[in-house]
Amino acid sequence: MSDHKRVLSGMRSTGALHLGHLHGALQNWVRLQYEHECYFFVADWHALTTEYKEARTIQEKVAPMVADFLAAGVDPGRAVLFIQSSVKEHAELYLLLSMFTPLGWLERVPTFKEQVQALADKEIHTHGFLGYPVLQTADIILYNAHYVPVGMDQVSHLELCREIVRRVNFLTGQEVFVEPAALLTASAKITGPDGRKMSKSYGNAIFFGDDEEKVRQTVMSYITDTQRARKSDPGRPDVCNFYPLHEIYTPAAEREEIKSGCTSASMGCVECKKRLLPHLNTAMAPIREKRDELLRDPSAIMDVLVEGNHRARAKARETMARLREALGMNYSPDSSGA
Amino acid sequence: MSDHKRVLSGMRSTGALHLGHLHGALQNWVRLQYEHECYFFVADWHALTTEYKEARTIQEKVAPMVADFLAAGVDPGRAVLFIQSSVKEHAELYLLLSMFTPLGWLERVPTFKEQVQALADKEIHTHGFLGYPVLQTADIILYNAHYVPVGMDQVSHLELCREIVRRVNFLTGQEVFVEPAALLTASAKITGPDGRKMSKSYGNAIFFGDDEEKVRQTVMSYITDTQRARKSDPGRPDVCNFYPLHEIYTPAAEREEIKSGCTSASMGCVECKKRLLPHLNTAMAPIREKRDELLRDPSAIMDVLVEGNHRARAKARETMARLREALGMNYSPDSSGA
Repeated sequence: MSDHKRVLSGMRSTGALHLGHLHGALQNWVRLQYEHECYFFVADWHALTTEYKEARTIQEKVAPMVADFLAAGVDPGRAVLFIQSSVKEHAELYLLLSMFTPLGWLERVPTFKEQVQALADKEIHTHGFLGYPVLQTADIILYNAHYVPVGMDQVSHLELCREIVRRVNFLTGQEVFVEPAALLTASAKITGPDGRKMSKSYGNAIFFGDDEEKVRQTVMSYITDTQRARKSDPGRPDVCNFYPLHEIYTPAAEREEIKSGCTSASMGCVECKKRLLPHLNTAMAPIREKRDELLRDPSAIMDVLVEGNHRARAKARETMARLREALGMNYSPDSSGA
Repeated sequence: MSDHKRVLSGMRSTGALHLGHLHGALQNWVRLQYEHECYFFVADWHALTTEYKEARTIQEKVAPMVADFLAAGVDPGRAVLFIQSSVKEHAELYLLLSMFTPLGWLERVPTFKEQVQALADKEIHTHGFLGYPVLQTADIILYNAHYVPVGMDQVSHLELCREIVRRVNFLTGQEVFVEPAALLTASAKITGPDGRKMSKSYGNAIFFGDDEEKVRQTVMSYITDTQRARKSDPGRPDVCNFYPLHEIYTPAAEREEIKSGCTSASMGCVECKKRLLPHLNTAMAPIREKRDELLRDPSAIMDVLVEGNHRARAKARETMARLREALGMNYSPDSSGA
């Protein structure tokens, strides 16, 4: 912790993770844990906003997900790793902030109407889904986080969070919470074989747990430069759907060789893909190994979570005590609730 | 407890209580505690839906209010008496139910739009105020209450509660919660001197703590039958704004005497009012005395609340464990949160 700033980031419990998560978020988490005091969590209550009809499916996703966090390098000795629903203060703060948040602020969040339409079959037009950014705000300010790593699509939620913070600070006349700042970090956009963003729901993902043969099949199935019909056509790595993987995994010298082989039409797509495999497997092997080890004995995962939940709760209780004090709602004879 | 049915009822923390509360709710509570397992609470989080800008004002209202409960005869040896915000499970259940509750159900609650307009200066058009019936539902089903004493204006809220219960039971495929039934009980409608419903905000209330002189002044200031201009006009007890107080406080024989004096124009309004005073004071004296005693040493109130909070939490935790089990969300390695 170089500067005593806190970072908060969570991931909805969607189950096993893939390369999209690794490059989109997890590598960033791993880096951040060396620079700041980090709180990372499994957002299982958030998952409920869309999965409430099948809440049961959330549970089987938690342990594999945490195994993937750890396998990717999140260090429970550095970062606090916890489950949202295990820290009940998230719910208490959600309720309190709910009282402070005008409906208009929520209704104008751009993702709200979009998502309601996109997920029409899930009937997510609920009070909880409308309150999604309120719960996100609670997640963040419960740890009084200074920074939140966000993608562009989450910027409006963070702005709302800042508005809520300003409102609470104004109405209490105290600096109860800090206004969190967005940590917009460059993250590689990983596409799947079909050219779409890598996603479990598209069935185009390379999971941490995939074995070498599965990885090979997926790699070989990538669409490349769609205008390169045969090997004798020169390829265009800058528009190719596959080449970005070399940018991540292949050493620079070899990458240049591949690039010139492609643009000069001396190397075909099949060979180009084969050249990625050893590098990709080298990168994935330790993650896969660590993951397998953890899932063989999930008690280690549970130990991490018990410890992380404990540390998160301590911080959360501190914040709630400060908020209750600022609101003048600390009159309960036993307000800790414990 | 004659039939092992549970009753839940709460009162927003509005401060010192008056005769309107006594006859509208409290006497009912006192009766119910001999018939059922009762949970009575101070709804301080509900108060926040309209008072969030001055949350600090809520705290000074809690102890006097509980003193009034006890003074009116609520027996902490029979009923569980607690503070809503001291049982954090209300917030957790609010959050979960929030995910299950379609916005449309809330938007069509008749009181919602009315209240938003009536209290325009308080800016209550918030996510929390829209979710008021969700929090009410959480309050009720957290104790798996069979009965809820409600006024006619609350019937739509209870119907919504029953809809939410049916939805949760349907989606989990289990009878997680019982559908609570309304306990519509005849309660005397108490009006103030100005003929309006007795209410602190109208400044027309007779408070438990009012001394005899204050009570006398208020009684003497009642509008009676507005068409009875002078004593020689016959009065009409059935439309009189004051006479209903005799129905409550004055023994039947004397009441008949007053009634015939009024209708025969032999008794004027001043004497009619004076005849109420000894009876009203006899009824109020023990309440006032008990109240004063409790407020002289609030530690007794705190003891009651510590005990009540503790009992309420035990029941609430049982319910939450059952709900998490039914939802399949009991995977947390330490989900008690304690």
